[in-house]
Amino acid sequence: MTARGAAPLAISLGDPAGIGPELICEAWVQRETAGLPPFFVMGGAGLLADAARTRGLALPVAPIHTPEAAGNCFAEALPVLGALDAEYRPGRSTPEGARLAHDSLRAATALAIEGRTAALVTGPVAKSELAAIGFAFPGQTEFVAAACGVAAEDAVMLLAGPQLRTVPLTVHVALAEVPGLLSIELVCRRARVVARAMAIDFGIARPRLALTGLNPHAGEDGRMGREEIAIIAPAIALLRQEGIDASGPYPADSLFAPHARGGYDVAIAMYHDQALVPIKALDFDAGVNMTLGLPIVRTSPDHGTAFGIAGSGTASAGAMIAAIRMAGECSARRAAAQFRLS
Amino acid sequence: MTARGAAPLAISLGDPAGIGPELICEAWVQRETAGLPPFFVMGGAGLLADAARTRGLALPVAPIHTPEAAGNCFAEALPVLGALDAEYRPGRSTPEGARLAHDSLRAATALAIEGRTAALVTGPVAKSELAAIGFAFPGQTEFVAAACGVAAEDAVMLLAGPQLRTVPLTVHVALAEVPGLLSIELVCRRARVVARAMAIDFGIARPRLALTGLNPHAGEDGRMGREEIAIIAPAIALLRQEGIDASGPYPADSLFAPHARGGYDVAIAMYHDQALVPIKALDFDAGVNMTLGLPIVRTSPDHGTAFGIAGSGTASAGAMIAAIRMAGECSARRAAAQFRLS
Repeated sequence: MTARGAAPLAISLGDPAGIGPELICEAWVQRETAGLPPFFVMGGAGLLADAARTRGLALPVAPIHTPEAAGNCFAEALPVLGALDAEYRPGRSTPEGARLAHDSLRAATALAIEGRTAALVTGPVAKSELAAIGFAFPGQTEFVAAACGVAAEDAVMLLAGPQLRTVPLTVHVALAEVPGLLSIELVCRRARVVARAMAIDFGIARPRLALTGLNPHAGEDGRMGREEIAIIAPAIALLRQEGIDASGPYPADSLFAPHARGGYDVAIAMYHDQALVPIKALDFDAGVNMTLGLPIVRTSPDHGTAFGIAGSGTASAGAMIAAIRMAGECSARRAAAQFRLS
Repeated sequence: MTARGAAPLAISLGDPAGIGPELICEAWVQRETAGLPPFFVMGGAGLLADAARTRGLALPVAPIHTPEAAGNCFAEALPVLGALDAEYRPGRSTPEGARLAHDSLRAATALAIEGRTAALVTGPVAKSELAAIGFAFPGQTEFVAAACGVAAEDAVMLLAGPQLRTVPLTVHVALAEVPGLLSIELVCRRARVVARAMAIDFGIARPRLALTGLNPHAGEDGRMGREEIAIIAPAIALLRQEGIDASGPYPADSLFAPHARGGYDVAIAMYHDQALVPIKALDFDAGVNMTLGLPIVRTSPDHGTAFGIAGSGTASAGAMIAAIRMAGECSARRAAAQFRLS
């Protein structure tokens, strides 16, 4: 294990008016039963203490001054790095809160890139609030990719739950634009990122990638759309020539059925809902969003700020806990792989 | 209960080389534990006996000459009406088998339209085999609708499982064509059929219809597609003016999550995979395909012929049993509703 593998994880606060802070506190309380590695939060000492109190949790906060100090106090208190903070007002998003979310994200990302944290877990933000204060990225993923110097095409969204892993090849675009965005190059480029991440971050020596079709019944031999014939099947053939175990295109409704899910390690879908509908139907409370293809490990819980229930104590911490656990596991595997290579 | 409600159900054989015949036999064997109403099969006495033997089932076949005779012998034997038959050769589809499937479907449909059976359950067919013998319809649904004199626009596919009911507004078309096919008129026309069927066939006095968006996040206020603003939301407003409890458009990935599924009786999706992916992910072995908007009750198991496993004894009868049960329940409710109205 290298130093990076043993370093604590960094968590960015997310919007302080959302459910992020209380779920971070809940994860810390469950750290032993959930088997979580040491982590610290980038800022928010006062508001985290308030969020814990509101949720009825016994949680001491330990201010720290370096990431490395987190490991020493994690067993007794939630380590919080730095002086960033704001008032805790659940459900009431403000520009001040958005600025705190931004500052926490920026500082935590910088530490991850410097290798002083094992991985980055990002709390949920409100995109519209961030946009209103001048945040120039569509979301946190794009911010982190740019900070890492990775092209947007090579930062690939993975949704992972206990029953399924899926990747949407296209993401936040109108459905009408999807057919025009697909190309052999895009499919191959992103599938390569996925294959490499499955091997290194998930420890799957020969990962099996299953690709969906774009059309109903995967086009039924061209009778309902030709993207399978013109784009997806040729891309799969190219990937196989490179030694990647890619297969398909499969009809999406069959691919996510229970008996089919054991036949692959990750499903690559052609668009947002094709990938997110099955994950959220099956694994809603434990879904993790991970960005593949970055020099750092970055995960986040696959849910939003849920302003409507923030502070009520009802939000499930399952996805936050799963995001922290996955970040720890993937960074340990990546560190071990780098150790073997070096 | 009217005479129609008490009449037996008719089952068409489907392709005799597929898993249909053995699943019909399995359903008869489980008739008491599964609480199934009396049914008969349209033809196939010899091949059903062979299919039962191959699956290791003790199943006597009772030839009958009128639908009405089925009720008298159903407890002791599987009633089979008429002389249609063929050799049982599982896994080997032939033109002769396709003709038998066609003849069985046609005869069973005619009896249902005449009111001599309570409902029609169709076994799975191979569309390409049917097309090869000159069957001029894309599938059984279109054949049955035409036989009933119902316009294709008003015959609406419902997928129903234990956890979810979904309707795809568009079905067997390329994904690229979907945005152009959606219109306020189409959404309203099909949603009205759905609302009526939920009330009469499913006994839900004030059914709650939840409509998906077409685009990711239901378009996010027009930032990713405008079909929600231009088509789906106005259609919902019109439906509500008519007294139909329609709501949405909702992001599809949220709508099918566990906590959301209790909030509606049926989800209306914009295209094939959006409706079928969640049903098959959640309810694969018990999914029923029902055609709404017909003067007869018609269901079928939501799976194909599965030639590859026909005769091996491994195919699950869950969906066939669910299709028979749903046909019985819906026809009884419809008969009761007609009795109240008359």
